[in-house]
Amino acid sequence: MKTQVCIIGGGPSGLLLSQLLHRKGIETIVLERQTRAHVLGRIRAGVLEHGFADLMREAGCGQRMDAEGAVHDGFYIAHDGRMDRVDLHRFSGQSVLVYGQTEVTRDLYQARDAMNGQILHEVSEVVLHDLKAATPHVTFVQDGEARRIDCDFIVGADGYHGVSRKSIPADVLKEYEKVYPFGWLGVLSETAPVCDELIYARHDRGFALCSMRSQVLSRYYIQVPLSDSAESWSDEAFWAELKARLPEDVAARLETGPSIEKSIAPLRGYVAEPMRYGALFLAGDAAHIVPPTGAKGLNTAASDVHYLYHGLLAHYAEGDESGLDSYSEKALARAWKAQRFSWWMTSLLHRFHDGDSYDSRLQQIDLAYLFSSEAAQVSLAENYVGLPY
Amino acid sequence: MKTQVCIIGGGPSGLLLSQLLHRKGIETIVLERQTRAHVLGRIRAGVLEHGFADLMREAGCGQRMDAEGAVHDGFYIAHDGRMDRVDLHRFSGQSVLVYGQTEVTRDLYQARDAMNGQILHEVSEVVLHDLKAATPHVTFVQDGEARRIDCDFIVGADGYHGVSRKSIPADVLKEYEKVYPFGWLGVLSETAPVCDELIYARHDRGFALCSMRSQVLSRYYIQVPLSDSAESWSDEAFWAELKARLPEDVAARLETGPSIEKSIAPLRGYVAEPMRYGALFLAGDAAHIVPPTGAKGLNTAASDVHYLYHGLLAHYAEGDESGLDSYSEKALARAWKAQRFSWWMTSLLHRFHDGDSYDSRLQQIDLAYLFSSEAAQVSLAENYVGLPY
Repeated sequence: MKTQVCIIGGGPSGLLLSQLLHRKGIETIVLERQTRAHVLGRIRAGVLEHGFADLMREAGCGQRMDAEGAVHDGFYIAHDGRMDRVDLHRFSGQSVLVYGQTEVTRDLYQARDAMNGQILHEVSEVVLHDLKAATPHVTFVQDGEARRIDCDFIVGADGYHGVSRKSIPADVLKEYEKVYPFGWLGVLSETAPVCDELIYARHDRGFALCSMRSQVLSRYYIQVPLSDSAESWSDEAFWAELKARLPEDVAARLETGPSIEKSIAPLRGYVAEPMRYGALFLAGDAAHIVPPTGAKGLNTAASDVHYLYHGLLAHYAEGDESGLDSYSEKALARAWKAQRFSWWMTSLLHRFHDGDSYDSRLQQIDLAYLFSSEAAQVSLAENYVGLPY
Repeated sequence: MKTQVCIIGGGPSGLLLSQLLHRKGIETIVLERQTRAHVLGRIRAGVLEHGFADLMREAGCGQRMDAEGAVHDGFYIAHDGRMDRVDLHRFSGQSVLVYGQTEVTRDLYQARDAMNGQILHEVSEVVLHDLKAATPHVTFVQDGEARRIDCDFIVGADGYHGVSRKSIPADVLKEYEKVYPFGWLGVLSETAPVCDELIYARHDRGFALCSMRSQVLSRYYIQVPLSDSAESWSDEAFWAELKARLPEDVAARLETGPSIEKSIAPLRGYVAEPMRYGALFLAGDAAHIVPPTGAKGLNTAASDVHYLYHGLLAHYAEGDESGLDSYSEKALARAWKAQRFSWWMTSLLHRFHDGDSYDSRLQQIDLAYLFSSEAAQVSLAENYVGLPY
C-alpha cells in the first residue's frame, strides 16, 4: 500500500488529523491496534477548549457536538465550606464545551466512514522503518498477513504505550516525568449532574470533582491513595466519601445511583522531546501525558493536530517546510504550558500533606488570593479555556 | 513607669508605630535589647512597597526617603540567557521605592528624638505580665536596676527571637514553618550598581540577585548551599560565581570591588497564629518570616503596623474596638499572602533540582508563561508593589 501520511493510532487525534487532511486532498491511512468497539469504549475527558471545538468544525464534525455539547461559561471551586465561581467568559471572553471524548471519537469515525477514510483495525506488530530516509515505510500484520505501507510521513498518535515514540533512538529522546502520590477514583453513573457546571473541590479529606457527560450521565471523581483498588470501593462508600468532600448544600442535593463504570487513574506528568524524528511526528499521549486536573490531555493532543495539520498542508500545497520544521518546538511549547497549568491546578486542589501544615495553609491562601485577584482569575481562565495556538 | 502602649523592640516596626501613635497623642515607650548603633548596623532589605512609603510620610519621616530613595517602576528577570522586564508601573499603576532599611531606621530614630520619644536601649530580662488582665505590665532590667512599665497594650515587635511571641502560651500558639534547602550569600560593596533596576536571575548554577542601596552602594546575592560559610567565599570567588549566573552583557559591565559586608542568610517561611493574645499584639518578624525573594519582610511588618496603628487610634479616639479585635485576622491574611508570593517567587527563581529534570523544565516554562501572559504579569506586579491593606 501507499499513502501520503500514515497515522499510527485510531483515537481522536489520529482520526481528527486524518479527517482534516482528507478534506484538503491529502491521503492518509490510519492503523489501529484495537477494534473500533474497544476504542469507543474508552471513558475519557469531556471538556473541550474552544480551539479544539473549532478544529472539529473545520473537520466537518461539529454538528452533533454543537447540538448536544453544553457550553460552560465557568466552573466552581469548592473550598473551606464555600463555593467560588471562576467566570471563564468574563475573564477570558471564551468558554469551554462539555462533550465526551467517546462522542468526539464516534463523530470522527462517522465522518471518516462517510468519506471512505481508510482505517485498518486490529493491526499488530507495527514497525516504523527508515524514518531518516526520504521514503519511510511501515510494516504490520493484519488478519495474519504481513503488510507494508510506503508513505511520505508517519504520525505517531498511538498513545503512551504505542510503538511510535519507542521508534525514536534512545540517545535522541529525552523524557521528563513527574509522578503524583495519588490517583483519581472515577465513577460514571446514570444520574443527573449535581450542578450545571463542574465543581472542583479542595477538602482536607482530599480532592473531588463533580463532572458530567450529559444531562443524564454524571462523572464524579475523588482523590484516593495509589494503593487503593476500584474494587475495594463500594458504590456506597464512594458516594459517602464524595459527599464528605463537598459543601453541605451540594452534598444534600447530590443524586446517587449505581456506578456503570468505576476505575482508578494515576496522576502523572510526562513529556518526550523532540516530537519530530525525521519523517515521524508524535502527537498526543505518545509525546505527553498530563494529570487530569484542568482537562488538558485531549486538548493538548488537539493542539498537536492543529500544528501538524497546518504544517502538512503548507508542505503539500506550497512546498513550505517551515510548519513541519518548527512543529516540535511549537507543539512542545504549548504542551509544556499545559503541563504547567495542570501541575498548578493539581497542586492547588489536592491533598499532599497531612494535617495543618505550612504547605496546606499555603494551599488555602492560594485559593484566597485567587478569588481576591482579578489578574489571578484571568490567568486561570486563559489557561482553562486554552492558550492561543 | 506608665504609658499607653509599651512597644518591645526598637527596629523599624516598633519605631514607626511609636512615631505614628505619638503624633496622634498616644503615649508609647519602646524597649530595645541592643544599642542604637547595633540596630543601625543591621544590613537588611531595601525595597519599600508604596504603602510602606505612605506610612513613613504619614509618620512625618518621608522627607529624606523621598529625596534620596529611588523610584523603581520595574525590575528584570534574567533567565535562559536573556533579560525580561516586569513593568510594575504598567501592570499595577504603582512602583516601589529602593531605600535601605538602615536609612529607614535612621530617619525614624531622628524623628523619635525630635519628639522626645522614649526609647530605652540595652534593656534585658524583659518579661510580659498579666496579658489577659485589664492592666498588663512589663518588667525588665536596665543599668542593673529592675524596672516596671504599666500600660494598656503591649506590642511585640522584637523579632523572631524576641520574648513577646514566647509569652503566648504554647497551647494557644500555632506555628507554621517551611525551611528551604539553601541560603543567600550577600555581599555589600561600594561599587556602582550594574543596573538601575533590580535583576533577579534564574540560572542552572543557582539564583542570583543584583540589588543596590544607593548609586554608590551595591548589594549582590547568590544562592549557596546551607553548608557553605561566608568565610569560605573569597571576594574573587563570589564575583566569578555571580558573573557566571548573569547574562554575558550584564556580567561584562559588572563593577567589582572589595566586600564591606559578607554573610549567608538561610531562607525560610514562618507564621505564628494568632497575632493577638489579650493585651499583646505581635508585629513583624515576631510573628512571621518570609524568604527574602520579593522583599516582603519589612513590608509585611509595615502592614502589621498599619493595622495596629489604625486599631489603636480607633480604640483611643472613639472607643471602637473593632480594629483591635480584627487585627490578628487581617494582619495574618495579608502576611499569608506575602508568604504565598515569597514562596512563589522563590520557587520560580531558585535551583531546587539537579540537572535537566521535569521540575526544572517546569520552572523554565513558568517564566516563559509569565512573559507571554499579561494577566500573569499583572498578578506578579500587584503582589510585588504590595497588595492593598
